[in-house]
Amino acid sequence: MNLYALTPGDEIRRRIEKIQHAMADAGMPAMLVTSNANIYYTTGRVINGYVYIPATGKPLYFVRRPTGIQNPDVIYIHKPEQITGHLAERSIILPEAIGFEMGLLDVMTYDRLTKAFGGIKALNASPVLRTARAVKTDFELDMLRRSGVKHERVYQRIPHLYEEGMSDIELQIEIERISRLEGCLGQFRIAGESMELFMSNILAGDNADSPTPYDFAMGGAGLDPSLPVGANGTVIKPGMTVMVDSNGNFTGYMTDMTRVFSDGDIDDLARKSHQCSIDICRSLEKAGTPGTPASQLYELAMSIVNERGLERYFMGHSQKAGFIGHGVGIEINELPVIAPRSRDVLALHNVIALEPKFVIPHVGATGVENTYIVTEKGLECITNSPEEIINLN
Amino acid sequence: MNLYALTPGDEIRRRIEKIQHAMADAGMPAMLVTSNANIYYTTGRVINGYVYIPATGKPLYFVRRPTGIQNPDVIYIHKPEQITGHLAERSIILPEAIGFEMGLLDVMTYDRLTKAFGGIKALNASPVLRTARAVKTDFELDMLRRSGVKHERVYQRIPHLYEEGMSDIELQIEIERISRLEGCLGQFRIAGESMELFMSNILAGDNADSPTPYDFAMGGAGLDPSLPVGANGTVIKPGMTVMVDSNGNFTGYMTDMTRVFSDGDIDDLARKSHQCSIDICRSLEKAGTPGTPASQLYELAMSIVNERGLERYFMGHSQKAGFIGHGVGIEINELPVIAPRSRDVLALHNVIALEPKFVIPHVGATGVENTYIVTEKGLECITNSPEEIINLN
Repeated sequence: MNLYALTPGDEIRRRIEKIQHAMADAGMPAMLVTSNANIYYTTGRVINGYVYIPATGKPLYFVRRPTGIQNPDVIYIHKPEQITGHLAERSIILPEAIGFEMGLLDVMTYDRLTKAFGGIKALNASPVLRTARAVKTDFELDMLRRSGVKHERVYQRIPHLYEEGMSDIELQIEIERISRLEGCLGQFRIAGESMELFMSNILAGDNADSPTPYDFAMGGAGLDPSLPVGANGTVIKPGMTVMVDSNGNFTGYMTDMTRVFSDGDIDDLARKSHQCSIDICRSLEKAGTPGTPASQLYELAMSIVNERGLERYFMGHSQKAGFIGHGVGIEINELPVIAPRSRDVLALHNVIALEPKFVIPHVGATGVENTYIVTEKGLECITNSPEEIINLN
Repeated sequence: MNLYALTPGDEIRRRIEKIQHAMADAGMPAMLVTSNANIYYTTGRVINGYVYIPATGKPLYFVRRPTGIQNPDVIYIHKPEQITGHLAERSIILPEAIGFEMGLLDVMTYDRLTKAFGGIKALNASPVLRTARAVKTDFELDMLRRSGVKHERVYQRIPHLYEEGMSDIELQIEIERISRLEGCLGQFRIAGESMELFMSNILAGDNADSPTPYDFAMGGAGLDPSLPVGANGTVIKPGMTVMVDSNGNFTGYMTDMTRVFSDGDIDDLARKSHQCSIDICRSLEKAGTPGTPASQLYELAMSIVNERGLERYFMGHSQKAGFIGHGVGIEINELPVIAPRSRDVLALHNVIALEPKFVIPHVGATGVENTYIVTEKGLECITNSPEEIINLN
C-alpha cells in the first residue's frame, strides 16, 4: 500500500506548498491536520492519524491505521502524546504556536492535542486550509472534470428510468443505482453538520416548498423526521416539476449538478423561472472572472430576478436560502460562498457550483445547477448537459 | 409542521427526564444540545438550532430553521447570542455552569457559544448524553424492532440479486437498492469522523484482509483512496466468502446486521470459524444480562476463540479490530462498547450489536452480526434471519 496511492508525490508537494504559503500569510509556524477531508488533501488518501506541517520543509505523517504504509515520512503511533517525542528524535524544535482545525475539531480532542504539545499556543488552521483548498491545482481540476463527464452520463439516463406512477423516492433509488454503476462513490463529504445527505435530493411538486433545517438551497420534507430533507413519497404527476440535484463524487472530487424533469407540459410561470435560471448562469459565466467579488455575482443574479419580477419564488418560497452558489471539491461546502454578504473574491481555479433556483407553488422547483472552473475568460462549465426542462416520457 | 412529528410528547418528556437524571448525577445545572443526533433525540426531529435543558422543568427550543414550527416552547432566533436575552425574558436565571457537547462540538462554535453565555463555566455534556441514550425507552425499542423486521427482509432477498460474474460492488448496489425500496433511509449516523460510510460494507474474498483507517470491525480497500473501505471491485468466485454488513436505518433508529454468502462450497477452516461466531453469539446471548461488565462478554468470546485455536483470524488477520460489539440506536457507535478494556456495564434495555468475525486468508470474512436488546433473561435478538453461510445459487 502506497501512502500517495493515486496521487503523485509532486502533486502533494504542490498542495503542501500552497498551505505553507497561506500559513506564512497567517503567521502560523506549524499545523496539525486532523480531519478526514484535509488528511486526504495532504496525503492523497484517508488515514487515521495526523499530518504535521511545518512552515517550511516536508510534512510528517503520524499514522495509527492502516498498517503497512511504506514511506520514510510515515511514523506509526498509538496515541497523539507520542508526537512530540518523535519530533524531538528527529531534532525538530517545537514551534511557539501550532495551528489546529478549530472549525472542525471537537473540544475534547482539541484539549487532548494541545496538552500533548505541552499546552502550546493554539492558532486556528481552518481558514488557512479552506483558503488553500479553494484554489485547485491542475491535478484537482482534472479530477473534477472527470467527475463532471460521468455526472453528465447519469443525467442522460434519467428519462429512461422513469415509469408512470413512480414516486419521487422510487425515481431517486433508480437514479442513485445508475450513478453508482457509473462509478459514483456515494459519499457526499460535508464540513460540519449543517447538511446530512449522501447522494441526491429529488423534489417533486409542492414538496419543494417544505422547509428544511439544513443549509441546502432547496428543502423537501423527507421521508422521516430523523432526516427531514428531500423526497417525501410524492407520486410524480403531469404538471409538476421533478428537480434532480445530485452529487457527482466519482474521483474523490465532486461536481454538483441539477436538472429539472417533467411528465408533460408545465405552466408558463414555471417555464419563465426556469429560463431565468439559465439566463442567470449565462450572465454569471461571463462575469465570473478572477478578482470578481462573490457578492457581485449574487447581486447580478438578483438584478435579473428582479427585472423579471420573480423575487417571490427565488431560492425558495415559504423558506429562502441565503446563497446561490458555493465552492466544491473534496467537500460540498468549500470556498468561495456566493452570497450577498460574502467577502470572498473569485480567484483563478476556484471551482464553484451555481444554483439559481425557484420554487413555484403548485408546480415545484425550477432552475439548473452547474459546476464551473474560474478561468481568465470567465466560468468554464464542467457539467455540460441540456439545461431545458426534460420530458420524462 | 409539528415539532414532535412522529414522536409523542410523553416520549420526549421521558427522554428529557432521563437526561436530567444523568445531569443530576454529574452535577450539571443546565445543558445546551447542539448535535443533530441529540437534537433529534430531544425533539423527535432534526432542527437547526439548540435545545436548552435545565436541571429540572421543561426544555426550551431555540430554532433557526425550519420555519413554521407551532409550539409554545419554541423560540425562533437568528443567532445564539440571542439565547440569554430570551431566557431573561422568561425569568430564567442563568446557571453557574452549562454543559456543552464537547465530544462533538467544534472549537470555534464552542468558543462562540460560551461567549454568548457571558463566558459561563462549561461542563462536558457528551458523556451525560451518551449515558442517557444508551438505555432505550420502550418507544425506541419499538423503533429498533421495526427496523430489525425490515432489515431481515432485505437479507432474505440477497440470494435473488446475485448473478454469476458479479463484482462485490455490483452486488452491493443491488442490495442497497432493495434496502431503499424496503424503506431504508440510507443515512448511517455516526458520532465523529472515525467512520465514513452510508449503507453497507460488502467484502468478497481477500479484500476482507485489506486494512482500513476507519474504526470498522472489518476493512476492505474500497474503490478509491478518498474512501478506503469496503468493496474494491473483486469479482465473486466459487470458494470465496461474501460478507454483507449493512445498516438498517428504517425508522431513525438502526439495527446492524451481517450475514455471509458464498457461490458454492467453502473450505473447512472458514466453515469452522463461521460456526465459532454463531456459537459465540449463543453464549453471549445467555451471558448478557443487566449488570454484566462489557469486558466480560469480550473475554467470554475470546475464550471460545482460543479453545478452537482461531485467534490468528479473529477480528481481522493483517489488521485487527479491538472490539466485538457496540451500542446502536440513532448512531452506529453508541454505548456500551464491548471491548477488553471497556468500563461499560450492561444495563436493562441497552441495545448492542455483536459482531464476532474472522478473516480467513484466500477465502474471506466469516461470522455473523446481530442486534440485541439487553433483557433480564439475556440478549434478545431483533435481527432474526438464518445464520449459516447462505448459498448464492
